[in-house]
Amino acid sequence: MAKDTRERLVAAALRLFRTDGYHATTMRRIADEAGLSLGNAYYYFAGKDELVHELYVSVQRDHRDRALADLIDGAPLVDNLRVVLHTGLDVMAPYHGFGTTFVQQALPGSSSASPFSAESTDARAMAIALMDHAVATSKTRVPSALRDRLPTLLWLLYLGVTLHWVVDPTPAQERTRTLVDRLAPVVGRAVALSRLPVARGLVDDVVDLVSPAEVQR
Amino acid sequence: MAKDTRERLVAAALRLFRTDGYHATTMRRIADEAGLSLGNAYYYFAGKDELVHELYVSVQRDHRDRALADLIDGAPLVDNLRVVLHTGLDVMAPYHGFGTTFVQQALPGSSSASPFSAESTDARAMAIALMDHAVATSKTRVPSALRDRLPTLLWLLYLGVTLHWVVDPTPAQERTRTLVDRLAPVVGRAVALSRLPVARGLVDDVVDLVSPAEVQR
Repeated sequence: MAKDTRERLVAAALRLFRTDGYHATTMRRIADEAGLSLGNAYYYFAGKDELVHELYVSVQRDHRDRALADLIDGAPLVDNLRVVLHTGLDVMAPYHGFGTTFVQQALPGSSSASPFSAESTDARAMAIALMDHAVATSKTRVPSALRDRLPTLLWLLYLGVTLHWVVDPTPAQERTRTLVDRLAPVVGRAVALSRLPVARGLVDDVVDLVSPAEVQR
Repeated sequence: MAKDTRERLVAAALRLFRTDGYHATTMRRIADEAGLSLGNAYYYFAGKDELVHELYVSVQRDHRDRALADLIDGAPLVDNLRVVLHTGLDVMAPYHGFGTTFVQQALPGSSSASPFSAESTDARAMAIALMDHAVATSKTRVPSALRDRLPTLLWLLYLGVTLHWVVDPTPAQERTRTLVDRLAPVVGRAVALSRLPVARGLVDDVVDLVSPAEVQR
């Protein structure tokens, strides 16, 4: 019941953000649109930023469910990476018209909707865990030095793909689909090369690029 | 004279964007602040978006001048890459408070301030030419298959660093400085490795990632 109400508010907010724009939409209009009192709406969400955050979390959840169903045990990493990136684009597709507004809202350091915010800790952990699962389920061997950082690096790559998707003007964002098809083999080959002794220095430098503790602002 | 007036308008706009916010600032207020008539202001800039674009172009110009002075002929690519990324951060430093607003405005496909817009063609070409110069002036040898794509890839890397800088909450954006110091060796080592026969497939895939013609929206 509470879940229904939350979803109704998010759906109402999305409709209004699309038609009237984010700035012009008030919590009162969102409550009206969802058929709730303003007080009731505020009981669930402290403001528009929290509604945007809820949308982010729910897209993450859908992404995980869809990807887990499609990942293939024992497939090459390149194939499973393609699955995990394309399913991400699949679940975001209905929200493309809202993509620019979402990034604009999530950008400031103070926004709870940012993927790097303290409020997004769970959503971020879920997204990184999905990347971890894509690696673990693949047959491609990853050098141990890289293994625990790779999911975070793949998640950052996914954020980059998402940004490309947001500004992608092509029909059905087909250019981003092409990018994913080109990026997956690059990562697959790079991981394969990373096992060679000659790549050890590079692997060490890549590992130092991002520590999991530094991902949160 | 026209150049002075343009700069005065950009400076006035920046002051108002900072104090009153981008949305609340009108062209009339900008004209007043610059001591010009509204008609005169519109003679130079069709609107706020063009003023933001002008700021983008002027930062690119400063970046090129600063970097060209600091690049070292015959140095390893890692050193010159560090120069070109750090000087980029140097020239942007005074505008950090405006960074979030800038990205928010430049994000929509219709914005002339976007680095991918048709209006940014010259600024983009200048920025990619700077990366090309950083590569050309370095002693590090680049495989011919990669040579003409590397400047574009480095420019995209620089855009990524810029985005990191925009959302960087640390004093003087020191975390982004650290990122640059870690990224430069990664690129230097990757370019060195790219010359090995074993990396040929990876190089081909990376080259296919982005064609210069695809950089513009």
